Amino acid sequence: MNEVVAGIDIGGTNIAFGLVDQQGNIVARDSTPTNSYSTPELMAESVAWQLVELANKHQAEIIGAGIGAPNGNYYNGTIEFAPNLPWTGIIPLAKLFIAQLQVDCLVTNDANAAAIGEMVFGAAQGMKNFVMVTLGTGLGSGFVVNGQLVYGHDGFAGELGHIIIRRDGRTCCCGRKGCLETYCSATGIVRTVFEWLEIGRQSSLQKLPIEQLTARKIAEAAEAGDSLAMDAFEFTGKILGEALADVVALTSPEAIILFGGLANAGYFIFNPTQASMEENMLVIFKNKVKLLPSQLPESNAALLGAASLIWNG
Amino acid sequence: MNEVVAGIDIGGTNIAFGLVDQQGNIVARDSTPTNSYSTPELMAESVAWQLVELANKHQAEIIGAGIGAPNGNYYNGTIEFAPNLPWTGIIPLAKLFIAQLQVDCLVTNDANAAAIGEMVFGAAQGMKNFVMVTLGTGLGSGFVVNGQLVYGHDGFAGELGHIIIRRDGRTCCCGRKGCLETYCSATGIVRTVFEWLEIGRQSSLQKLPIEQLTARKIAEAAEAGDSLAMDAFEFTGKILGEALADVVALTSPEAIILFGGLANAGYFIFNPTQASMEENMLVIFKNKVKLLPSQLPESNAALLGAASLIWNG
Repeated sequence: MNEVVAGIDIGGTNIAFGLVDQQGNIVARDSTPTNSYSTPELMAESVAWQLVELANKHQAEIIGAGIGAPNGNYYNGTIEFAPNLPWTGIIPLAKLFIAQLQVDCLVTNDANAAAIGEMVFGAAQGMKNFVMVTLGTGLGSGFVVNGQLVYGHDGFAGELGHIIIRRDGRTCCCGRKGCLETYCSATGIVRTVFEWLEIGRQSSLQKLPIEQLTARKIAEAAEAGDSLAMDAFEFTGKILGEALADVVALTSPEAIILFGGLANAGYFIFNPTQASMEENMLVIFKNKVKLLPSQLPESNAALLGAASLIWNG
Repeated sequence: MNEVVAGIDIGGTNIAFGLVDQQGNIVARDSTPTNSYSTPELMAESVAWQLVELANKHQAEIIGAGIGAPNGNYYNGTIEFAPNLPWTGIIPLAKLFIAQLQVDCLVTNDANAAAIGEMVFGAAQGMKNFVMVTLGTGLGSGFVVNGQLVYGHDGFAGELGHIIIRRDGRTCCCGRKGCLETYCSATGIVRTVFEWLEIGRQSSLQKLPIEQLTARKIAEAAEAGDSLAMDAFEFTGKILGEALADVVALTSPEAIILFGGLANAGYFIFNPTQASMEENMLVIFKNKVKLLPSQLPESNAALLGAASLIWNG
């Protein structure tokens, strides 16, 4: 029987799950709407049952389960107070799945799962010290030091999105001001463009209804030569590079890997980020740290990341 | 025979060395002026010989040597381009001492040595995740994650003194502007007081000749109720707390330990630092992270830190 790990990615809208072999092949996959389960117990029972069905169908044996979830806590195997899920409080996710599947089960948050996925199957293979940065709705990060994920004392380390990059800057959903993710994320670049349109800067993007203004539309406009859109990437990369220079001073990684919606804009975001990072870096670190795109295909990254929690152990 | 580790602390003025047993007792110690050796080879030969003499006198056996040195690189066992030492370039320190003593020899920088010293013999005993901050002429730091020092890819991680806390702020000796250590260090607080005196603020400190204005004098003035001196500690602690809140977001330590000249000012520096750290911290970390004074006596800390490199292994 083919040994596989169950990878489970719990999101606010869907729960994606699949079977991943040791080479990183997704043997089978499926998904289910998060809101169809009134309790986490029902969800775990149903997802586990579907995973076992998939395993039977593919003559595979599930040897463990890895789960990526918002506010996932590695130490406790829990989701703790995740704002976007239908279930409240502290959810003993690992325990629920262990009860169903009778195998090891590890939980972490999405960005940490992405970091391990990158180490086991992607751009960070063979690296012992690197930083994963996910540029989606927010900015997530996973730090790997000496080949191990940095969970910190309580399991919540790696909140790069919430370092203060501009004192008294933009209001953040965390209740503070000037957090990195208010500038450097898919949402952040939209705020930048919106602010500039508000003060009357000209752009092809002003024809769009506000609700259609996305990071992807900004990238398309930049591609087409729109100068406001290009400036928005410059501005975003400049600030991200400043933050990454500080990250390098603290952890001196071999590489920083960018993943997610905003990272897909390619050189529009990579070039100004790299330039700003080098410009702001302490001399001893200059020209040493690689800035790399993720090598996990976006549609598989969450499952591979979750499964790699087990394959890495 | 009593097993001991040779602890060696290489500074710009003196080289302190001694024998440290597994309980952290300094069995014997001595020192020698750094400038009395024209080459690192002569220094290693002489210091090793003196260490062996001490060991013989105390019927002790040297089972390893730990060295703390400016720009010390753990991976390579070297000092690399230290600006304050009489020897230039890359110095193969571990190799030189291994040749003399025929035992294991590990090298790291002063702040990392202090961190390990604190973990083995001081305030961080039993901790797996903490941050050491040394507030001396500059600001040094050592990060411990999962019980291991964070050296990073190249051995130079932990440069908290050189994160940019104020864009376009004070000029730093590293050639950039706004580095944390230009505000939060013994030198930094002197700059603060000097700037305020320059713009005409009144203080008992203005009677002092400039060259006598030290962090200790400022602490004495604060103790005596001088309001400019007290404000200077408030200002320094406020900025340090901002930086530590960001450090917590990234590494989520159990404790942050303050050591060195400025830390000796006690509540004058601890109170505003703690208040600012809590104020600037992401909600999930609030009231969780201890801010502690070092528990290594300052006169022994460097030797204990260096020796703990071996006792920790």
